[in-house]
Amino acid sequence: MDKYAKRRAKLASWLESKGIAAAMFEDTEGRRDPSIRYLSGQPGDAVLFVTAKGRSVLVPWDENMAARYASVDRIVPYGAYGRQASKAIEAMAVDEGLAHGSLVELPSATPYPVFVDYAAEVENLDFTCRSDGADEFVLGLRAVKDEAEVELYRRAAAITDEVADEIERMVREGRARTEADVALFIERACRERGCEGTGFDTLAAGPGRSFGIHAFPNYTAAPFATEGLSILDFGLKLDGYTTDVTMTFACGKLDPKRERMVELVERAYAEAVAMCRPGTATRDIALRVDGIFDGAGMKMPHALGHGVGLEAHEAPWVRSREDNLWKLAPGHVVTMEPGLYDPEAGGVRLENDVLITENGFEVLTKSRIVRL
Amino acid sequence: MDKYAKRRAKLASWLESKGIAAAMFEDTEGRRDPSIRYLSGQPGDAVLFVTAKGRSVLVPWDENMAARYASVDRIVPYGAYGRQASKAIEAMAVDEGLAHGSLVELPSATPYPVFVDYAAEVENLDFTCRSDGADEFVLGLRAVKDEAEVELYRRAAAITDEVADEIERMVREGRARTEADVALFIERACRERGCEGTGFDTLAAGPGRSFGIHAFPNYTAAPFATEGLSILDFGLKLDGYTTDVTMTFACGKLDPKRERMVELVERAYAEAVAMCRPGTATRDIALRVDGIFDGAGMKMPHALGHGVGLEAHEAPWVRSREDNLWKLAPGHVVTMEPGLYDPEAGGVRLENDVLITENGFEVLTKSRIVRL
Repeated sequence: MDKYAKRRAKLASWLESKGIAAAMFEDTEGRRDPSIRYLSGQPGDAVLFVTAKGRSVLVPWDENMAARYASVDRIVPYGAYGRQASKAIEAMAVDEGLAHGSLVELPSATPYPVFVDYAAEVENLDFTCRSDGADEFVLGLRAVKDEAEVELYRRAAAITDEVADEIERMVREGRARTEADVALFIERACRERGCEGTGFDTLAAGPGRSFGIHAFPNYTAAPFATEGLSILDFGLKLDGYTTDVTMTFACGKLDPKRERMVELVERAYAEAVAMCRPGTATRDIALRVDGIFDGAGMKMPHALGHGVGLEAHEAPWVRSREDNLWKLAPGHVVTMEPGLYDPEAGGVRLENDVLITENGFEVLTKSRIVRL
Repeated sequence: MDKYAKRRAKLASWLESKGIAAAMFEDTEGRRDPSIRYLSGQPGDAVLFVTAKGRSVLVPWDENMAARYASVDRIVPYGAYGRQASKAIEAMAVDEGLAHGSLVELPSATPYPVFVDYAAEVENLDFTCRSDGADEFVLGLRAVKDEAEVELYRRAAAITDEVADEIERMVREGRARTEADVALFIERACRERGCEGTGFDTLAAGPGRSFGIHAFPNYTAAPFATEGLSILDFGLKLDGYTTDVTMTFACGKLDPKRERMVELVERAYAEAVAMCRPGTATRDIALRVDGIFDGAGMKMPHALGHGVGLEAHEAPWVRSREDNLWKLAPGHVVTMEPGLYDPEAGGVRLENDVLITENGFEVLTKSRIVRL
């Protein structure tokens, strides 16, 4: 049984226990879901069914791609169903011998009008579609990295650090002068080192643009790491799994406001990381950081962190919202990324990826605030 | 009245005529909708309400970004609503004086479980959520480019051609040897020429990987434009609007199968473009191309084309599915991109952006199959 079949077996037991005959996963433009890759190896652009009996049926957009990457019981070309998901669902149910009226779980991202259409068009099945259903169960599996995944993260982190170190050298030696210089170096360097690419659009913002949480456009031909605060947020994707780090380059003698922002972020980061251990509520960590910033009359306009994996942002969530009930557990890999932003002073953010271990934590990446 | 207010005025009239008090638009991770940018100038990460009275309320994730880019009646920080969309909807209704029980249109991408939550949590409003509602109406507006948008497309096309020409020279002169060489040249060249970046992930696939419709990973350190068929699919984003072109590099003496694929794609492309004029059903064009390939015993595994604009793929659609009822109209900018793929021979695709004029068409970009 390969790793995909093992993962599907866990899902199948869960489905069985919930009285669900099959669950559907969908990865299409506008509704990406890397759980398809987690459960089948198929990189994307497909519909996947997993039944409570443990059977898997993949309906890919690109058959050649599926033949090369997918490890499932059956591959059925999308064209066979007139490119209509409702027909694919109906046919899957017949081919897999699902009883009339069986319950099928749809992806939680299924748009309301699409759900209504499925319900009207598919007569042989009942549907459920919940925010805490089968895909949420798989997100829970994904949140806890197994040994092989942790090993992959160590390799991805080492490459990320190597690239970050080289960027610091390039900046110090005047070999990288613009946002594009830095971002394009990352794009090339990661591929030369065996990565699939970057895990998300690199954000490189020089002092004139670092006021934005996520710079727009994400990088330009503007100067980087000149006088003031510059932010570099990037991640490298290795075999599907992405790192996510942010460095700030603080250049020149900072005025008191910028100096204060840098110190606050460094302090918040240190306190947040130190709280990481199994059992800790991530909300408590986020509230601690909020408190540090509140005490200085400042406010962080985004969440403190998030899990990383096949998606750059995934469970577990690290935020101060009341509905965040996540507790850290061994195998979680989360970012800690306090940041402060000011329309005039610019922004500062520090972010690393933290593995939760049996007894505490291990910071996988070595991103930092660089003073120039 | 700026262009955003003019667009919102059209939407407001439509809402008024349908008895809808307000429409909601949402651009968040996992549910991107550049209609927010079309209607307000805000690049993204926001919720936008437009009322039938023509009022606009933006709830941005990043206030600094909104202060710089958004042109709306009112900006309300997301934090003010505990980062919960349902509370933002409720407050908007009160602040804008919507009557109790008013009908609010939710984005058609709203997930079923989210719709159910809104309906349960928001007591002062009724909701509608349809595939042919307010956001579809705005997609219809976006499909027809006005004079300024067409002018922008001419500029974007000229830059795209300049970059394509330089890539052909680089390949011919041996200055671009890998997929990464080509893709990274595009990333840098477009920014140096004033673009925001690429409009989507560049697909550069050498002969070993061109069998995939969309290569995975999208580009690597592998050789490009060596013996066989290589595909380069890219687009440049200028002020939000993206071009979308595909070149194939056919290198060396092709075997009969590859030669046949290239000739079929060139013929299909020429016939498809020649059919472009106002009133033509896009399905008829797609069926013509299907017929050409069928006649040769081959099959195109994707749609023939699509509109381009603030999204790389948007209305009008150009595909042979029965439910495609689109007819071309002046101001449409669509791609024509026939392609054929074979697990051994590799793939060939040719794609340009075509403007529909009053009397016919104008091919904006000059992408081609390059024989080396």
